[in-house]
Amino acid sequence: MEENAFSLLNQINSPDDLHHLSSDELERLAAELREYIIECVSKTGGHLAPSLGAVDLTVALYSVFSLSCDKVVWDVGHQAYAHKILTGRREDFKKLRQKDGITGFPCRAESSYDAFGVGHASTSISAALGMAIARDLSGRGEHIIAVIGDGAMTGGESFEALDQAGDLGKNLIVILNDNGRSIDFNVGAMSGYLSRIRIRPEYNRAKKDIKELLSNIPQIGDKVFKTAEFIKEGVKSVIVPGGIFEEMGFKYIGPIDGHNIPLMREVFDDVRQMDGPILVHVRTKKGRGYLPAELAPDTFHGVGPFDLTTGKVKSNPSAPKSYTSVFGDTLVRLGEANEDIVAITAAMPGGTGLKAFSERFPDRFFDVGIAEEHAVTLAAGLAAGGKRPVVAIYSTFAQRAYDQLMHDVCLQNLPVVLCLDRAGLVGADGATHHGAFDLSYLRHMPNMTIMAPKDENELRLMLFTALMQSDPCAIRYPRGSGLGVSCDGPMTGLEVGKAEIIRESDGGVALLAIGTMVDNAEKAAELLSVDGIDATVVNMRFEKPLDTELLMKLSETKKVFVTLEENALMGGFGSAVLEFLADNDIDMRVLRFGLPDRFIGQGTQTELREECGLLPAQIAEKIKRFISK
Amino acid sequence: MEENAFSLLNQINSPDDLHHLSSDELERLAAELREYIIECVSKTGGHLAPSLGAVDLTVALYSVFSLSCDKVVWDVGHQAYAHKILTGRREDFKKLRQKDGITGFPCRAESSYDAFGVGHASTSISAALGMAIARDLSGRGEHIIAVIGDGAMTGGESFEALDQAGDLGKNLIVILNDNGRSIDFNVGAMSGYLSRIRIRPEYNRAKKDIKELLSNIPQIGDKVFKTAEFIKEGVKSVIVPGGIFEEMGFKYIGPIDGHNIPLMREVFDDVRQMDGPILVHVRTKKGRGYLPAELAPDTFHGVGPFDLTTGKVKSNPSAPKSYTSVFGDTLVRLGEANEDIVAITAAMPGGTGLKAFSERFPDRFFDVGIAEEHAVTLAAGLAAGGKRPVVAIYSTFAQRAYDQLMHDVCLQNLPVVLCLDRAGLVGADGATHHGAFDLSYLRHMPNMTIMAPKDENELRLMLFTALMQSDPCAIRYPRGSGLGVSCDGPMTGLEVGKAEIIRESDGGVALLAIGTMVDNAEKAAELLSVDGIDATVVNMRFEKPLDTELLMKLSETKKVFVTLEENALMGGFGSAVLEFLADNDIDMRVLRFGLPDRFIGQGTQTELREECGLLPAQIAEKIKRFISK
Repeated sequence: MEENAFSLLNQINSPDDLHHLSSDELERLAAELREYIIECVSKTGGHLAPSLGAVDLTVALYSVFSLSCDKVVWDVGHQAYAHKILTGRREDFKKLRQKDGITGFPCRAESSYDAFGVGHASTSISAALGMAIARDLSGRGEHIIAVIGDGAMTGGESFEALDQAGDLGKNLIVILNDNGRSIDFNVGAMSGYLSRIRIRPEYNRAKKDIKELLSNIPQIGDKVFKTAEFIKEGVKSVIVPGGIFEEMGFKYIGPIDGHNIPLMREVFDDVRQMDGPILVHVRTKKGRGYLPAELAPDTFHGVGPFDLTTGKVKSNPSAPKSYTSVFGDTLVRLGEANEDIVAITAAMPGGTGLKAFSERFPDRFFDVGIAEEHAVTLAAGLAAGGKRPVVAIYSTFAQRAYDQLMHDVCLQNLPVVLCLDRAGLVGADGATHHGAFDLSYLRHMPNMTIMAPKDENELRLMLFTALMQSDPCAIRYPRGSGLGVSCDGPMTGLEVGKAEIIRESDGGVALLAIGTMVDNAEKAAELLSVDGIDATVVNMRFEKPLDTELLMKLSETKKVFVTLEENALMGGFGSAVLEFLADNDIDMRVLRFGLPDRFIGQGTQTELREECGLLPAQIAEKIKRFISK
Repeated sequence: MEENAFSLLNQINSPDDLHHLSSDELERLAAELREYIIECVSKTGGHLAPSLGAVDLTVALYSVFSLSCDKVVWDVGHQAYAHKILTGRREDFKKLRQKDGITGFPCRAESSYDAFGVGHASTSISAALGMAIARDLSGRGEHIIAVIGDGAMTGGESFEALDQAGDLGKNLIVILNDNGRSIDFNVGAMSGYLSRIRIRPEYNRAKKDIKELLSNIPQIGDKVFKTAEFIKEGVKSVIVPGGIFEEMGFKYIGPIDGHNIPLMREVFDDVRQMDGPILVHVRTKKGRGYLPAELAPDTFHGVGPFDLTTGKVKSNPSAPKSYTSVFGDTLVRLGEANEDIVAITAAMPGGTGLKAFSERFPDRFFDVGIAEEHAVTLAAGLAAGGKRPVVAIYSTFAQRAYDQLMHDVCLQNLPVVLCLDRAGLVGADGATHHGAFDLSYLRHMPNMTIMAPKDENELRLMLFTALMQSDPCAIRYPRGSGLGVSCDGPMTGLEVGKAEIIRESDGGVALLAIGTMVDNAEKAAELLSVDGIDATVVNMRFEKPLDTELLMKLSETKKVFVTLEENALMGGFGSAVLEFLADNDIDMRVLRFGLPDRFIGQGTQTELREECGLLPAQIAEKIKRFISK
């Protein structure tokens, strides 16, 4: 990295430093920021395309508003790299998403400039409205700004927040950062609506004209309906009405070019002086300024390290197939055999591996956008209509649909198959993205069958098994590569509620492992055997129903049960084993491995497993200590 | 009940019987239905006002559509009594909401006419869209209809569903049953929007005119903006455009009078022949046809038995104050002392006891409408802005905000106080409404403090305690009356994580109880003492953090721990005790009382507690058997 390439950026130590820069300097700063982000992320990996798209917007915004008092809430936060770099974290940015480095998303614990922690979509308007109310109650006057993508705008919570914000009329600025896509292409009527207003004439007049028009804003409500006619007649309107937003009580300004810094500064300067809830519609291009990312914004949405000059993503060619792709391939095969199978994703066709299914069966594939609640109830409706819906969502995002899983799926006992990718520790995305709780939050849902595969082949069999059931089923599996086992065997069903004994022994210790921890348990058992401790290893397969028959049998000969899961220790699989033992009045010492009762940060998956004591050597060591007590 | 008063109703055994009735007969049927509902509900209690408001709509709908194949999804379902009575449950309706009687909401297990089970709001469009997709994939042609109130329309999931439905363009009919309120008055910009279109001229022309206009519908999108001008100029338009719904891809028809059966029949008959997603906006009056309910629709929203002639609700004047009202009174008192306290409800100012606070501190009270997700993130934003938000939601509805509690509140460790009313078994509202899971779903959230009071006075102290903390806190308390203890004592804080020993003994049994079960544990201990078993009784107060010091001490002398909670046994309080014992390698027999791993139906709270074995005598008996083993 040539440091002199960042001569202007290097002088920016707080966002208010931008107030002293000329227009030309702001442009140069944006260019340096872009360069810096590209260079750093090429080494660390990260959310490159969305952050590049928001560089100009961030520069314009921070050159007008005073971040020393004003507050910006970045929805999802994967577009906030420029924000991080401009708010005192320039050097730290080199350790982006590394263990003990800075996080990939705004985080209140990391910086006072991170007004609100984010990671899951569609929370920014709610949070910003809360801050605006708090400001008014306290008699302060800072500006509160939510920056939200068009993808996150489709999440129901955004609508709930717009609904109240428009009604309350508090001073609140919502910037709709519209790049025409969420992670993959955006979907839904709102998306169509935005693209309709997006092609309208731009908000590009000189400041004087704008001022004049803005002064008319109190009356614009009456004029809003006329405008469509203006457009049809070819009349260029300066403030194009955003029907939906206006109806919701917002003043709408836009669309404006989100890469035109002077224009944005003019608009923001006006907006700063306006009252009430305002929505500024800004059009940006994902990946802006880095050609490979502009051409393949999905690939560069969240990307690993890549070659700076070629844009080629560094990959490990010898890595086994990922769980995601095995899931995707298997579902296509099952979909060929059973035409009742339909697949649903919430804005993640690529991330969940459903792309192949969507291409093979376009009529049986539904991307609902960022709308996990709707995704699950839609699936329940499809099941009620006789279909076999498979809903693929990341474990952490499925938390959004907790109530729908309980109330619409489990209470009605409908055969919805929930496929939870990214379960367990996900690595660099950190605390907001770990799938740390699904074994806990699903377990207490009556009627739910819950599985976790020990390897990618077992994922195939579990998907097959789930689709043979007439009850709700969930399968949780980790981020990243499988173990490299063959996935060519026949597709047979597993017996529901039956575990698999992987290693039998006469010793007094049984390792009961589920999902990713089966492999670690096996390795731990090997280490233990070196020390003369011969442990039984069980691949539990089902968290629910538990294989109570096997547990009962093991309890007759074993003195110690060791439970292993990559999930919160509170209420998860180990807890299920304890409940079984207590309810059957079985006296057994139990040692539980899993995630502690705190939020786990970022790092590689291995680093984080180590932090949680889940590596084979750590497991073996702790077991030795336990049984020697 | 004079049976001859229902001579027409008594002939209706399936909804398609309505097809043979004349216009006059349909009017008479509606009148008889109303009468029948009022008479039955005066004895059983139930959701009277919403169901009365929807009688005419139901009669019109079922006289046009064929319920033998067409499907109607009733959002929330508390307006579906006429539906139940017309679909073969006329006689059963007399046992509405009773144990083993019919449920208060549509329920797939109860009738094939109940296309989708409901109880929580805003799911109907998602479910109906799923059914519409399933229908099209299967090549069937039935009509799919979602009937949704204006209150439920503000829930984010409705918006997510409209967004996809408008985009997909499938045949789908959404009937917006607009009575201008959710449970209390409706709030939010959408509500304002609806009231603006509500005052527009009615859709009241003759069929011929309507036909003519409907034939123009493909072009209406272009005309939509003109209409506001028409209205300003006093021109009566027949089809008044619903801007937002049209923008979302729906054809909008309305508003029409939801008590004019012939008009609705004409409209439905037209709609039946139209393609694509259609929204019919129907205006109804909550409580229609029963003056006391029309005058006090909130009181009669969900009401207990009442006197038919006077409309006077039968109450037990000697019943102690409810937990709800103690909560409400206490919050007013605390709000007087600390002006940072703000209160949030999701459409339940009355039900959650916040009415007094809202009147005393209108600027510090926020009813967000049916929008639990937004409610919780809004609270997090308020906390980030320095306020002390108290969010009062029914336990079952807080499930909607699981992710926001985890991601926005706990992950950021913000001091939001969550007050979960109706925790545990709620009684007649049944499976969809029990607060059966909060101790399980909150417990695995890091940073969360969780309390449950043994009586109404302890609720006061817990609220005070929660507002003294700087971390997230939840308090869960039951539906209904307190124990009648005095609430006049000084308001002092409880020590966080410390239990209270209620009954000390030298015996080997310790009853560890939380919330409502403390009283039952005491009574069980008294019964046990008669049999010479002297048990210790502990009011645990905190599910999290557990009083591990006390548990450790008790474990030195006790042989049996008995845990008692009115929550799912899976992952709840008892599970926390098991985890504590295992993690400290303590050998202890544990007997757990709580809710089994299935959905519990309806009945009185006592009947349901009996069903779950939670009455004092049942507890004592089971403990005796356990310790004698």
